[in-house]
Amino acid sequence: MRIGVLTAGGDCPGLNAVIRSVVHRALTGHGDEVIGFEDGFKGLLEHRYRKLDLDSVSGILARGGTILGSARLERGRLDEACGHAEELSRELGLDALIPIGGEGTLTAARMLSDAGMPVVGVPKTIDNDISATDRTFGFDTAVGVATEALDRLKTTAESHQRVMVVEVMGRHAGWIALESGMAGGAHGILLPERPFQIDALCAMIEERFARGKKFAVVCVAEGAHPAEGTMRYEKGAIDQYGHERFTGIGNRLAAELEHRLGKEARPVILGHVQRGGTPTAYDRVLATRFGWHAVEAAHERQFGKMTALRGNDITLVPLAEATAALKTVPGHRMSEAESVY
Amino acid sequence: MRIGVLTAGGDCPGLNAVIRSVVHRALTGHGDEVIGFEDGFKGLLEHRYRKLDLDSVSGILARGGTILGSARLERGRLDEACGHAEELSRELGLDALIPIGGEGTLTAARMLSDAGMPVVGVPKTIDNDISATDRTFGFDTAVGVATEALDRLKTTAESHQRVMVVEVMGRHAGWIALESGMAGGAHGILLPERPFQIDALCAMIEERFARGKKFAVVCVAEGAHPAEGTMRYEKGAIDQYGHERFTGIGNRLAAELEHRLGKEARPVILGHVQRGGTPTAYDRVLATRFGWHAVEAAHERQFGKMTALRGNDITLVPLAEATAALKTVPGHRMSEAESVY
Amino acid sequence: MRIGVLTAGGDCPGLNAVIRSVVHRALTGHGDEVIGFEDGFKGLLEHRYRKLDLDSVSGILARGGTILGSARLERGRLDEACGHAEELSRELGLDALIPIGGEGTLTAARMLSDAGMPVVGVPKTIDNDISATDRTFGFDTAVGVATEALDRLKTTAESHQRVMVVEVMGRHAGWIALESGMAGGAHGILLPERPFQIDALCAMIEERFARGKKFAVVCVAEGAHPAEGTMRYEKGAIDQYGHERFTGIGNRLAAELEHRLGKEARPVILGHVQRGGTPTAYDRVLATRFGWHAVEAAHERQFGKMTALRGNDITLVPLAEATAALKTVPGHRMSEAESVY
Amino acid sequence: MRIGVLTAGGDCPGLNAVIRSVVHRALTGHGDEVIGFEDGFKGLLEHRYRKLDLDSVSGILARGGTILGSARLERGRLDEACGHAEELSRELGLDALIPIGGEGTLTAARMLSDAGMPVVGVPKTIDNDISATDRTFGFDTAVGVATEALDRLKTTAESHQRVMVVEVMGRHAGWIALESGMAGGAHGILLPERPFQIDALCAMIEERFARGKKFAVVCVAEGAHPAEGTMRYEKGAIDQYGHERFTGIGNRLAAELEHRLGKEARPVILGHVQRGGTPTAYDRVLATRFGWHAVEAAHERQFGKMTALRGNDITLVPLAEATAALKTVPGHRMSEAESVY
Repeated sequence: MRIGVLTAGGDCPGLNAVIRSVVHRALTGHGDEVIGFEDGFKGLLEHRYRKLDLDSVSGILARGGTILGSARLERGRLDEACGHAEELSRELGLDALIPIGGEGTLTAARMLSDAGMPVVGVPKTIDNDISATDRTFGFDTAVGVATEALDRLKTTAESHQRVMVVEVMGRHAGWIALESGMAGGAHGILLPERPFQIDALCAMIEERFARGKKFAVVCVAEGAHPAEGTMRYEKGAIDQYGHERFTGIGNRLAAELEHRLGKEARPVILGHVQRGGTPTAYDRVLATRFGWHAVEAAHERQFGKMTALRGNDITLVPLAEATAALKTVPGHRMSEAESVY
Repeated sequence: MRIGVLTAGGDCPGLNAVIRSVVHRALTGHGDEVIGFEDGFKGLLEHRYRKLDLDSVSGILARGGTILGSARLERGRLDEACGHAEELSRELGLDALIPIGGEGTLTAARMLSDAGMPVVGVPKTIDNDISATDRTFGFDTAVGVATEALDRLKTTAESHQRVMVVEVMGRHAGWIALESGMAGGAHGILLPERPFQIDALCAMIEERFARGKKFAVVCVAEGAHPAEGTMRYEKGAIDQYGHERFTGIGNRLAAELEHRLGKEARPVILGHVQRGGTPTAYDRVLATRFGWHAVEAAHERQFGKMTALRGNDITLVPLAEATAALKTVPGHRMSEAESVY
Repeated sequence: MRIGVLTAGGDCPGLNAVIRSVVHRALTGHGDEVIGFEDGFKGLLEHRYRKLDLDSVSGILARGGTILGSARLERGRLDEACGHAEELSRELGLDALIPIGGEGTLTAARMLSDAGMPVVGVPKTIDNDISATDRTFGFDTAVGVATEALDRLKTTAESHQRVMVVEVMGRHAGWIALESGMAGGAHGILLPERPFQIDALCAMIEERFARGKKFAVVCVAEGAHPAEGTMRYEKGAIDQYGHERFTGIGNRLAAELEHRLGKEARPVILGHVQRGGTPTAYDRVLATRFGWHAVEAAHERQFGKMTALRGNDITLVPLAEATAALKTVPGHRMSEAESVY
Repeated sequence: MRIGVLTAGGDCPGLNAVIRSVVHRALTGHGDEVIGFEDGFKGLLEHRYRKLDLDSVSGILARGGTILGSARLERGRLDEACGHAEELSRELGLDALIPIGGEGTLTAARMLSDAGMPVVGVPKTIDNDISATDRTFGFDTAVGVATEALDRLKTTAESHQRVMVVEVMGRHAGWIALESGMAGGAHGILLPERPFQIDALCAMIEERFARGKKFAVVCVAEGAHPAEGTMRYEKGAIDQYGHERFTGIGNRLAAELEHRLGKEARPVILGHVQRGGTPTAYDRVLATRFGWHAVEAAHERQFGKMTALRGNDITLVPLAEATAALKTVPGHRMSEAESVY
């Protein structure tokens, strides 16, 4: 078999582990040939690829980033590709394509699959918000990075007697905030899934200080927002060019808390630190298993599907299903985190 | 409610996170009282306990070990306790007891439960070998420690052109070896579940060297063993007092490989480094959830059960079921790891 | 001897290691008594202290923060204390006081010493800007945290083809930016010691992109500033209450680069993550040695001095000298960092 | 200028950082050409080298191992090379050679230099035992790895009520044991520099247990040895082939302590984990500075010297001086560590 692999979308720890696993399994398990397309779907359309042998994936298991590069593809070019998907596969001699990516990539994968390309997807998102799989690789690493930051901030917040607001990733789903907040012992955890009550948050913090505690740490997902009309800092600030700055919820919430509580409140915006670098062991194992099973799926001609974790097992689910609904934090998970202060 | 909590058996990262979570949920969620018994079941039998308030669990979330201490209990004393379990509960005013421990502890918990004590167990084992739950806390930390060691050894093995044999924990189940071996990119992974073929292992290593690779890393579970009669180093060495030393599989395998391959082979026995210290974020979350749900179970009078992870959810399973069978690595998981070199 | 110890000023990894070392050396080396004052000099003035025995410092070596607490003291109260320093020592039965702190603390220490209190100081600053000592504890930890962030950002910046601006601590001295920038392979390193040329920075970044590199990382000390009149974003933005926000150099520089280069540029403000949490081995050793030598100095009645590192040795320097001049990054150190891209 | 660089001897975190720095400084600072010899001096003698441009050192700053490979050279071939050192330089067009290595490498470097080759050495040893420099890169990383192991072992030792013996690297100098022992809070630290008293060690441990402590951790350098005739386990054990096994001091000391104290004592031999993998920020900075200054020295024609750290500055010292005497742990440093339990 001749198998193509590509990575698309943003960075995510574990991408290289998937690529390496695809190459290992295909070459040593099946005697396949593997080619890697450069810069995501762009490389596919432009026939830019290189052969991947064992040496080419040596030493990349623990490395962040992707050796294949990644780039966004305009919708127009994707549609065009779908128009001649079978021909493209034939020209490239592709028996299977394994695109690794997030929601957008998987949607593109589904479209190409529907158009006749033999595709097996591998889901990727540090946000952990794909419903068809229990977990995605990259998420554990992101939670680990955020937790370490919370660990460090807790001792320093105590010494300085202040409120720390830590903004973590999660635009539509609050998984990173939930799990890093629990693991790092945050006193408040604010998620996109449920508008937060600024009054209740302030009351909790004041109650802590009243109990003699000298600091509080709030972990807020970038997509969290207050119940409508309750927060004064609803907007950012305006710079000299008229651009709005300082608009993120972490910055605004710190300002709000300082304003309301009369205590120093400092924002820490972790940002892209969460999505780069060496993956955790958990993410490397999951990524490796996804790669292995993607190759097996190709050999079983299970096209139009993607790999997914269910309990301890890797299964295959239709790509259509995979991107149907966002997996958000359910209410019972929020409850678990509530009494943790 | 008056809830007792105790930790029994060996060290495991996450014990303190469970204790803290029990206290938080019981006190702030239900207004309960929580007491912590010292040194496991011993403290229970000897009425040695202390009240646990929010302050007493402050700052312990990320700390290794257990603030309550742990000790093994002789079988005789346990039987005795079972003889007056209801009375003991009454004397201590216990509405629920939450013992946190491994197989032995959960068996004791079941016996006390059968004898009339209101018990909700929390499973604990770094080996991840309890069938009733997808994962146990402590395991992720152990895998992380072993993986970091493998990462470091790979660069140094290359420079020194040698074979490294890394022995990790896992007497009866090879989960740590499997996952750290995959995450750390070991070239051979040897598990207790399947006797290994020393000839095949040597052939694989020689094939690597023939391909121009300058080193090989083998990850072996402490409980792994060769197919009968195939390894010359079947025994350890004898010290001046006649005690057998150097008996572990890591030591013997390194000697065997050196002997057979004519290349330097060095054992690294990670040992207790794997079971101490700060838990990973994953383990802290799982431990915290287990503690939370154990308190809920107590309030719902779901006694004789223990907490378990299934997919992304925490459920309750009967203690009897929990300790029925060891969860070993199934064949399909071993296959996933095979082509990874 | 009866020795008092206190910690003052901001958090710094290693404070607990000093306290522990003072207690160990004084008790087991000399049979002294040690008392710890709470909340810095406040506890001294208010006679709030507790006896520190071996148990009270057990397990704190690797812990961030300070078990004694810390607080700022108003100048007035310090002056008052200086007015009756000898009397205060007598009342408390103090044969020696070991204050651990930064420039402000050491200045206060000098004043109390001049007023007759038997003082041996221990310098503390994550900024590493005290001239009398080669290094201070806390600095290595801060550099380590910043370096890890840079490591992670480099892979992710590449995938996203953007410029990352990482702001690290260092108001008056750029040591953290210098060393983490070098260790993390930043392409630009901007220090408070020398106004930076925004044109030259842009040229360097453009040259990188012209060479086919897909990202650039700039490490900027919070106290760095552009050559006068060269940067358009000289001010922050104005929020709805008229407060200036978004004023830090990291935020403004990212805006400026985006504006000038026409490429996405993102700020990451590491903030207090750098000054909390577990100290590195280096910082623990240095802190432990400082504590040990402070006790020895007390026994040798070397009052009015503080501990300092010179090469590999710990020496004593007069407190007056210690706070005389800020240790800034010299030109030759900047040159070393310049060609590193 | 045409500058050659090579790495020789065992693995050491920071080697790649030196190579990268040499390339950066030479190319962007001076417009030089740099070639890298493969497998140490072997590559030099066999004219095996490759040109190193900026791309070839991209991404290696934080990577363990050496991209150039390393190998030991037989004395005979070195002598031969010295016989035509000038000719060799001429043939290769070498204006300067920068060998990076330990004592053996620096001795070879001195011999080649004496024979007319333009050499600037860079010292490398994780043992930190070269007298001419305050510190060597690799050492900080090794201490960090050993300290993390000690951190983890302390919580687990407590739970299991046992004595842990941790053997760290250091055949002739005990720097790693000293600093990791201090940083990790070991209760006993045993160094090659001073034969240890097994009776005194046992008394200390018994005193700890008598004080109610439940564990003890001993950090022993691989080169440490007991005062003559005091330890029963003077030899290892004999395996079935008559080879002595289990000979290391860590293994023997654990057996001895178990025998004498009647308590479980477990050895942990950290081994090569200490010398591989990602270097700490400290080591990356030092390695980068050494590389930078080696290039400067080449341009200043300061041949026959090597880079060295003195206080905060990098200086040059004659190669002859550099390898004259081993830097061992002085008595006053041992004293500092003594009261730390």
